[in-house]
Amino acid sequence: MTKKLPQILKGFRDFGPDQMAARQLIFGKIRAAFERFGFEPMETPTLENLDLLAGKYGMDEKLVYKFKDHGGREVAMRYDLTVPLARFYAANSADLPKPFKRYIIGPVWRGENTQKGRFREFYQCDVDVIGSDSGVADAEVIAAVTTALTEMGVLDMSVRVNNRKIIDGVMSLLGVPDSKFVGVLRALDKLDKLGQKRVSDELRKTGVTSEQIEKMFKMLQATVADSKGLKKVFSEVQFENKLLAEGVGELSEVLDAAALIGVENLIVDLTLARGLDYYTGTVCEIGLSQAPQFGSIAGGGRYNGLIGETSGGRGKVPAVGMSIGIDRLIEALKDLSVLKYDPKADVIVFNLKPDYLESYLTLVTELRLADINAEVYYEPDALDKQFRYAEKKKYNLGLFVGDDEIKDGKVAIKDLVTRKQWKVDAGKIVQEIAKLLS
Amino acid sequence: MTKKLPQILKGFRDFGPDQMAARQLIFGKIRAAFERFGFEPMETPTLENLDLLAGKYGMDEKLVYKFKDHGGREVAMRYDLTVPLARFYAANSADLPKPFKRYIIGPVWRGENTQKGRFREFYQCDVDVIGSDSGVADAEVIAAVTTALTEMGVLDMSVRVNNRKIIDGVMSLLGVPDSKFVGVLRALDKLDKLGQKRVSDELRKTGVTSEQIEKMFKMLQATVADSKGLKKVFSEVQFENKLLAEGVGELSEVLDAAALIGVENLIVDLTLARGLDYYTGTVCEIGLSQAPQFGSIAGGGRYNGLIGETSGGRGKVPAVGMSIGIDRLIEALKDLSVLKYDPKADVIVFNLKPDYLESYLTLVTELRLADINAEVYYEPDALDKQFRYAEKKKYNLGLFVGDDEIKDGKVAIKDLVTRKQWKVDAGKIVQEIAKLLS
Repeated sequence: MTKKLPQILKGFRDFGPDQMAARQLIFGKIRAAFERFGFEPMETPTLENLDLLAGKYGMDEKLVYKFKDHGGREVAMRYDLTVPLARFYAANSADLPKPFKRYIIGPVWRGENTQKGRFREFYQCDVDVIGSDSGVADAEVIAAVTTALTEMGVLDMSVRVNNRKIIDGVMSLLGVPDSKFVGVLRALDKLDKLGQKRVSDELRKTGVTSEQIEKMFKMLQATVADSKGLKKVFSEVQFENKLLAEGVGELSEVLDAAALIGVENLIVDLTLARGLDYYTGTVCEIGLSQAPQFGSIAGGGRYNGLIGETSGGRGKVPAVGMSIGIDRLIEALKDLSVLKYDPKADVIVFNLKPDYLESYLTLVTELRLADINAEVYYEPDALDKQFRYAEKKKYNLGLFVGDDEIKDGKVAIKDLVTRKQWKVDAGKIVQEIAKLLS
Repeated sequence: MTKKLPQILKGFRDFGPDQMAARQLIFGKIRAAFERFGFEPMETPTLENLDLLAGKYGMDEKLVYKFKDHGGREVAMRYDLTVPLARFYAANSADLPKPFKRYIIGPVWRGENTQKGRFREFYQCDVDVIGSDSGVADAEVIAAVTTALTEMGVLDMSVRVNNRKIIDGVMSLLGVPDSKFVGVLRALDKLDKLGQKRVSDELRKTGVTSEQIEKMFKMLQATVADSKGLKKVFSEVQFENKLLAEGVGELSEVLDAAALIGVENLIVDLTLARGLDYYTGTVCEIGLSQAPQFGSIAGGGRYNGLIGETSGGRGKVPAVGMSIGIDRLIEALKDLSVLKYDPKADVIVFNLKPDYLESYLTLVTELRLADINAEVYYEPDALDKQFRYAEKKKYNLGLFVGDDEIKDGKVAIKDLVTRKQWKVDAGKIVQEIAKLLS
């Protein structure tokens, strides 16, 4: 009697060899790009004390996977890669370079509703600069991400950038009380999804007047090409409000640096808010112009409060970072067919006769010693079956040694793509294969 | 008032940039070696249905991290990488190449006693062949692991190999009842730690007689160099017992194949049992001869029952695999100073004057566009501080652009290792740096 097949958990995924090849390619491109910008790799654990995560994610806190461990401790699976970074930085800042430029690639867990097509385990890739207030840091984080995307083959992306102080400053200028700022940011964050009319309704509900809303949208929807343009929009009002002046100054610095380090397609979008409460200045969101249906595939900003708070109130630690949504990105890249990679499977030695196993093993070993990826088919199965195996694993070249080849001291090579077949001396096979693969 | 610093969980670890560099190097070597043997990467999730893991780990089952998720499901964090593989294989075997040769690198979780210096989250690296009964598969799994170790710089390892059927066969031959085999294997598994006398005591407790124990050790402690030697040891008795004959035949096949594919230092140790109950044939354990204090750093064997059981009794699926204990390995390699890697940090552009920020950003961008890892120090801090930063990140070359250099159209290069300093034309800097780094 057969039992039911064991099932994978809903919202969780296996990655088979084909998917892994694409993932490793993407991770490799990200690493290379980030390291080119002087960011270093790091890792934090899967589990943290629940205390660390508590109070950090607002209403989404209920999505945190939490439980009591063997020792009765309240623990949680990490919900993002930023809060653990704050803990790491607080504990190790004395030994770390300042600023600390790091990246991390790893899974996070959220008890999401899978009916919305969301995963409960998904990879994030974060790049951050801790300990610098310079706008160059903000620009570099953006540049590192756009560089990685470009090198994956993304040609056309929209990089929207803003500074939250500008939104707050404009609110303040218009007489909206501080206590309503968070509500305003949350409402503005839905602008893409809900449109201006419904966001205006929501703003009114939070207590902002129609007049204030109208004036706000007028200022925030200005078209701005660069730092000069930005300063011009606010030339008459910015110094009436400290926050606004700071925001305009900071965003200008970021825009200037970004232009110099080659960030293209930067769009100043003064309505861009981003949901997470902990952003304090720059915010940025990247989408794919050719695949807008995937929404934002990377986003982030400056969070000058979080690290200090997490480290137990030891003063402010400026920080800026971005996060790439790896899963969405991979889906989008597949959709756009920009993900190109060659399978690494080079050579398969077919198994014709048990008597010749020794020859097959010697041959495959010689190839491997020359750094050629090669395998031998284990059993002398029907050739059909062996060909199907070779095809499934996308082998480029197949080698045969049968009675004739043994007699003549030859090896037969078959190009499994063109189906062309020829023979070479057994002594020259490694050399020949190396030439064919190069 | 400052609060207590948030703490990392006991038994869990952060990996800072220096540790990550070593880890990435090791993971890269493992991947390259495994792919050279035709193994493909895959990944399974962190969480599984508790059902899947239940009953798989004997007395260690209490170490499994388990809890109820948001939907009230009983879930568990993966305890090893083999049981999830069995689930994956059962669900996907129709689409997978046969045999399925895969590797996986990832963390597993066990609620261990940290006082013994054990970690609760640690990385494993598994390499397996599913669906082949050939002894070549066993030999290849061993060869892939020893190749990876050799390429990391391990010169001297002990690779002990055995076949459980030989132990069982000898027991059977000596009249020990089948029901006592598991107890015998568990006792033998402690031979390294407890020595022969105490293991004999334990065997007596399980009901094996002193005479049986003596005869068993006499046979199992024979010195065996190769398949010929093995057959000689059992020449008079092997065909009296089917299990023994199978074990001798299988181990011979593995030894012959291993010799052909270049596994060196293979030691036949007929007392080698390995604790996990699910092994059915070949067992193997690898230690570092120069660092025996780290114990076994890789081990595995053939497990022909597990996959079939896990997949709900759909017949036997032969499988063989090995697992590398990454953490122990890394500690051992550090101890042996065989881990050599160059930091990837190439060039830092020092920040002398805010006025020249534009030059610095342009310079660093030109370098990056030429695929050179480069960063600019963000703030015009005291040079001392900038040098300390460069040293911490192990930069090789530093670039200066000050008043003189701006005036003369030059860039000053400082070799941060030799402290030598010289100037080149600004237009030739990328070329010069590329030459220096190549």
